[in-house]
Amino acid sequence: MDHIADVLRQLFFLLLAAKIGDEIFKRLRQPPVVGEILAGVVVGPAVLGWYEINAETMLFAEIGVVLLLFQVGVETRLNELVRVGPTALAVGALGVALPFGGGFLLAGILGSPLVVAVFLAAALTATSVGITSGVLRDLGALRTRAGRVILGAAVIDDVLAMLILAFASGLAAGSVSLGGIATLVVVAVLFIGVILIGGTRILRRRRSLLTDPEFAETPFLPGMIIMLGLAALASQIGLAAIIGAFLAGMVVGESSERHALESEVAPVAAFFTPFFFGFIGAQVDLAGLANLETLALVAGVTVIAVGTKFIGAFIGAIRLGRAEATLIGWGMVPRGEVGIVVAGLGLQIGAIEGHLYTVVVAMAILTTLIVPPLLPLLVRRAEGAAAPDGDEGPSAGIEDDDGVIGRDVMA
Amino acid sequence: MDHIADVLRQLFFLLLAAKIGDEIFKRLRQPPVVGEILAGVVVGPAVLGWYEINAETMLFAEIGVVLLLFQVGVETRLNELVRVGPTALAVGALGVALPFGGGFLLAGILGSPLVVAVFLAAALTATSVGITSGVLRDLGALRTRAGRVILGAAVIDDVLAMLILAFASGLAAGSVSLGGIATLVVVAVLFIGVILIGGTRILRRRRSLLTDPEFAETPFLPGMIIMLGLAALASQIGLAAIIGAFLAGMVVGESSERHALESEVAPVAAFFTPFFFGFIGAQVDLAGLANLETLALVAGVTVIAVGTKFIGAFIGAIRLGRAEATLIGWGMVPRGEVGIVVAGLGLQIGAIEGHLYTVVVAMAILTTLIVPPLLPLLVRRAEGAAAPDGDEGPSAGIEDDDGVIGRDVMA
Repeated sequence: MDHIADVLRQLFFLLLAAKIGDEIFKRLRQPPVVGEILAGVVVGPAVLGWYEINAETMLFAEIGVVLLLFQVGVETRLNELVRVGPTALAVGALGVALPFGGGFLLAGILGSPLVVAVFLAAALTATSVGITSGVLRDLGALRTRAGRVILGAAVIDDVLAMLILAFASGLAAGSVSLGGIATLVVVAVLFIGVILIGGTRILRRRRSLLTDPEFAETPFLPGMIIMLGLAALASQIGLAAIIGAFLAGMVVGESSERHALESEVAPVAAFFTPFFFGFIGAQVDLAGLANLETLALVAGVTVIAVGTKFIGAFIGAIRLGRAEATLIGWGMVPRGEVGIVVAGLGLQIGAIEGHLYTVVVAMAILTTLIVPPLLPLLVRRAEGAAAPDGDEGPSAGIEDDDGVIGRDVMA
Repeated sequence: MDHIADVLRQLFFLLLAAKIGDEIFKRLRQPPVVGEILAGVVVGPAVLGWYEINAETMLFAEIGVVLLLFQVGVETRLNELVRVGPTALAVGALGVALPFGGGFLLAGILGSPLVVAVFLAAALTATSVGITSGVLRDLGALRTRAGRVILGAAVIDDVLAMLILAFASGLAAGSVSLGGIATLVVVAVLFIGVILIGGTRILRRRRSLLTDPEFAETPFLPGMIIMLGLAALASQIGLAAIIGAFLAGMVVGESSERHALESEVAPVAAFFTPFFFGFIGAQVDLAGLANLETLALVAGVTVIAVGTKFIGAFIGAIRLGRAEATLIGWGMVPRGEVGIVVAGLGLQIGAIEGHLYTVVVAMAILTTLIVPPLLPLLVRRAEGAAAPDGDEGPSAGIEDDDGVIGRDVMA
């Protein structure tokens, strides 16, 4: 019981600090998410040490981002996502290729061995869709064309990142199995395709399935069950849990009771997401960064991470016009928890050492902190510049009668 | 990430099974809670092994019961609880004294050493208010006089149980400090008194405090913060975390936005409480029970546990009439997680051995399973028999305009 008391106390300090950071940043007219991440830095091991990284706080952070992506999925319609498919594919592919190349080149300049180069490059390719989609939700811009391109690209990004990680892990273990990697591709594509097409078709044909009185009163608990199941299944096959949660949200969002579902998911997500944002901040290791050489390396890696991701995604989205391409490019920049997880995996299997890990984590958090403040401006510019486009759907408007409810309503 | 995937899968299986158990028991017109506990037996280590007891699943169970008691607290008014104070004190005290005596006697008959006797007796004194209050919520009977007596007695019970545990632990360690135990009493009474009287006074004078636009939009996140904080503080000083959560709920329930709060807490609690009920079931060790001698011991311990608790609480509540005293006596019977925690502590510090632990866990689960099916009948009888009583407030009616919303509405 003493351990449970410790965990409850840590969760209390993190939630309290995140709420305070959130409120301060709202008053400064800055994205609350940044306030929550910085709150995690303050209460985490780097400063006060009132919150630590352990199995339980990690689980709360993971459930937080799983719920966030489930919520984003519920508000996303499959046909809207499919309509931006080609652009999302280009953004995802170029947004992985350029950072990978950049990371590889940088490692070459630093004289790192091949395995280190591949892991560094892999950490640079990751995109943390949680951060951007959280801010876009707050701005009510999740269902704009640019918002949908970012979501679609993030899914593609994650599939590619999984393949790169499989390659990197194979390299570190001394044997890369091309057959194994091909199997991964097939499994991942099947997983996504079967869930989306099968799940949404079943629910569209029988929209009341999840709310049938024989089965449940509201789609809330069935939705939570599907969310946990697909999140677990996604991580089991090597994808991120949040991809499974996002797909689950899209499927359940086809239910006829979507509005009831949204209002029940909202408080659960509002309770949990601060644990995710705070957890990211708590990863900062200020002591490990306290020398000029390290800071210079962090600056270099961050510049490469921001530049390559932005340029890659920008080129992928250029056919939508400069304003939307800029928003999409910038929205793909945060590495968040995904970059940290990749670096952590590299550390765990001995492919990279502690110093480089600290650098990559600092880069992941910096890319995450710089993105939100600029997003409101870029969203407004994209809304002003975009012309309606038959192929890709309305650019800035929301398609049906559902208002997109910002996270703030619940916060 | 693999470990997180395992945990997500285990939580998925438990939630799915609990939902199925819940639905089956609703159709059988039996309390859904029993279905959720039995679902935990099935997916837990005893049968399928798809769910295991680990740090993360324990945390989810704990947050589940913390949220349940917070929710119960929000729906409980301090003045209503104070009005039943003397009866609750009698029920709590006698409901601890008789089981303690019974456990001690039984241990004497079995020839157990003093330390074992004290731990067995301590495990018999515990009351799991989570089970009864969950069922009473479902029946809309939480705010009846009997419901309030059970809640008040459970708080008193927990203070006494804490003292007995402190005594038992001191005995096991070879030194009982009466000064230390006196300090515990003072700290516990101060904790409860200061929070209830201070907290509710502050909120009554400024009912809008938690919803002030300068502070927060709705009292939901502030409520969750206070809940985690008081739960952590309560376990830190040796009380159960759920007592802190219950007090937090009562304080926050004084907010002017109580209805908005209730509708936001409901989905969070509906998501989490199945993890608590399922967790209790998952503690069952069928293999350890598979011989006649053990089964006989379980039967004996269970009969003593049920009999002593029922008679003690019944005598304490007899001035309310036989029908209500029967309901209160029966409602105090479940040992649930509290009995398991006490036995686990005894096991951990070496005061009792594995075999007796298995027996106590089986007793705790049996007392928990037998109570809910009879409660609807006893509630109806108490409602029929009770006459209004000025001192104790209305017996069965609900006092103000707030309907008590059953957990089922959300499930």
